[in-house]
Amino acid sequence: MNSTELITGIGELTTQVESTSPRERLHDAALVVGDGRILWIGPAARAPAADHRTDVDGRAVLPGWVDTHTHLVFGGDRSAEFEARMAGQAYAAGGINTTVAATRAATEDQLVATAQRLRHEAEGQGTTFLETRTGYGLDVASEARSARAAASVADVVTFLGAHIVPAGMGRRTYLDLVTGPMLQAVLPYVQFIDAFCERGAFDVEETREVLLAGRAAGLGLRVHGNQLGFSGGVRLAAELGALSVDHCNYLEPADIDALAAGATVVTLLPACDLSTRQPFPPARRLLDAGVTIALATNCNPGTSYTTSMPYCVATAVLQMGLTVGEAVWAATRGAARSLGRDRGTDAIGSLFVGGRADLQVLNAPSISHLAYRVGVPLTGAVWRQGVRVAPMP
Amino acid sequence: MNSTELITGIGELTTQVESTSPRERLHDAALVVGDGRILWIGPAARAPAADHRTDVDGRAVLPGWVDTHTHLVFGGDRSAEFEARMAGQAYAAGGINTTVAATRAATEDQLVATAQRLRHEAEGQGTTFLETRTGYGLDVASEARSARAAASVADVVTFLGAHIVPAGMGRRTYLDLVTGPMLQAVLPYVQFIDAFCERGAFDVEETREVLLAGRAAGLGLRVHGNQLGFSGGVRLAAELGALSVDHCNYLEPADIDALAAGATVVTLLPACDLSTRQPFPPARRLLDAGVTIALATNCNPGTSYTTSMPYCVATAVLQMGLTVGEAVWAATRGAARSLGRDRGTDAIGSLFVGGRADLQVLNAPSISHLAYRVGVPLTGAVWRQGVRVAPMP
Repeated sequence: MNSTELITGIGELTTQVESTSPRERLHDAALVVGDGRILWIGPAARAPAADHRTDVDGRAVLPGWVDTHTHLVFGGDRSAEFEARMAGQAYAAGGINTTVAATRAATEDQLVATAQRLRHEAEGQGTTFLETRTGYGLDVASEARSARAAASVADVVTFLGAHIVPAGMGRRTYLDLVTGPMLQAVLPYVQFIDAFCERGAFDVEETREVLLAGRAAGLGLRVHGNQLGFSGGVRLAAELGALSVDHCNYLEPADIDALAAGATVVTLLPACDLSTRQPFPPARRLLDAGVTIALATNCNPGTSYTTSMPYCVATAVLQMGLTVGEAVWAATRGAARSLGRDRGTDAIGSLFVGGRADLQVLNAPSISHLAYRVGVPLTGAVWRQGVRVAPMP
Repeated sequence: MNSTELITGIGELTTQVESTSPRERLHDAALVVGDGRILWIGPAARAPAADHRTDVDGRAVLPGWVDTHTHLVFGGDRSAEFEARMAGQAYAAGGINTTVAATRAATEDQLVATAQRLRHEAEGQGTTFLETRTGYGLDVASEARSARAAASVADVVTFLGAHIVPAGMGRRTYLDLVTGPMLQAVLPYVQFIDAFCERGAFDVEETREVLLAGRAAGLGLRVHGNQLGFSGGVRLAAELGALSVDHCNYLEPADIDALAAGATVVTLLPACDLSTRQPFPPARRLLDAGVTIALATNCNPGTSYTTSMPYCVATAVLQMGLTVGEAVWAATRGAARSLGRDRGTDAIGSLFVGGRADLQVLNAPSISHLAYRVGVPLTGAVWRQGVRVAPMP
């Protein structure tokens, strides 16, 4: 075994070992890390010896964030479109074409460098497990290149060939490509498949065809649904038992019933909702119906160019009706569940003996400060698989 | 003269030298700083020599934030009250009593240490000029001590004896104290007077009495008005020609007309609005009526425990209808105007030759990224009166 590290003086420890929110918070705790795993958790007074010792002086410790929805492989910039939208222009899915052109024009090294920079920025804000997805290539070679770049940067990758029908291509021709050669080309690099089920993108039957092709190839299912209207994407996700349906700004009672009857996680993307000026999803009603919630950044250059999970947690508390405990759970263990990774030895999003040492220290005595002190950068040290990726400032 | 510093490679320079928003942004600019002042501004290609040179590599440079509304002198913590409010409990002004008791129980050294820590945290986020106020002492000795502590930490101080009537004291007795011995005791330390004109605090006639006593003593006028209802505070502020009226969540058309007819600045406090779940003020209507807007944090342990001006700017853009240029102007030159400090040699909130070298570098090519990349800590280096108070990360 390599050297061990004792992290002690933890004022408040959030482990997320219970399987539903809200979480219990332990006080005066300590933990020992070694070989990328957690070796011991308990009261600080009974902590065993270790090679190194870090005293966090009463600060809060919790699992690193699990960001399940990002689009980090892209070229170009859409700050001008953003400024125009803030001055009153409505969001439409077609803006994606701008990024597709810039992504195709970029070299693979450029794509990887941008994605790495954003991953590093996310780690500095406490993110220890990151999904990213394709969807700005939209031809076989470009999607394969995007998937390879994504796999070199992220922990898991989602194939989003079905983002939009690219300019100049017929719908049927493109669907045959996505469900055929493009899917085969990305398969070595991806674990999930996603489709954008929305007016201006793909309808329910097209989405179903894409998802079923992905399932047949062994991929987990994710859906972009009901962001811009009642698209039917949520009902389809529930019907197919998708791992997650993301956005969900427009939900009818029957959508909530369908979600409550199944195990599909709803992933909320509050930064995107604000940037596109969509109404927030009815998060409180979903929770009260028993639906599992995850929180993610949706980091992308068009509609949500943030890597900040702390901002998403704070916004969920201040504006979406989640308690602090519920929001933190959604950004850790809830997010893990939406990746099928919340149980077993390789579980993420919770802290348990034998599990991955993915954790963060806040420069604050409690997770409540994530919303109480909104906007203040509170991330202290961050460990990913036991390795410190961000120092204590 | 001490040594000079050339800051070059500025991708976008926002000077705020025009007196109304939105601002022009210069490209490929440089500036020279020496003896705490700006010595030169112009195109990078024509920059003069200097003793030291900092290349900011295409980043945006703008004036440091001017935070005109904070309550940094306090004891204790109200995170439990915050969590209860997030779980559905309504905000009432009475919670102030909790902080009054804790402030009276703290030593002056403790009060100064807390305020210094928060000022340092604010500087790390780009704030170079900071107001703070009393209002958690509410007896003569405690207010005098708070004013002295405030003056040792902040650039300017506001006397807020009229925060609430403290528990166990008659209204008339307290007003006589505030307008008499308490005002005299704080006078060596303060430049402004403020009163909380609200149900549960002071009515319009009481507020008028307090403000007029302050004016007679030579203080500039500020008002907490119309936060929890139509309190009349806004109309009174306009009538008296106060420098600023802060909050303004509830405005009738006649309030907006009164503001448009005068020069009183409206100071928006978006983090407080979210934390107390008040409706946002009609910022767009105010701007369209020609009212000058400032943005501030309202940093205090009860209703807005943030030091983050970037968060306030982003929220104003994403949720209150300001353009990026308008929000940045409101957080710099608009804020300066609300302190009577936006013109002349000692002006703050704008960058001009001969003026104070209070400026910040963003880790981004444009001020648009403050909202486009919401939540991401973008503050780079910060200079206050020519001295670097935050390094380039």
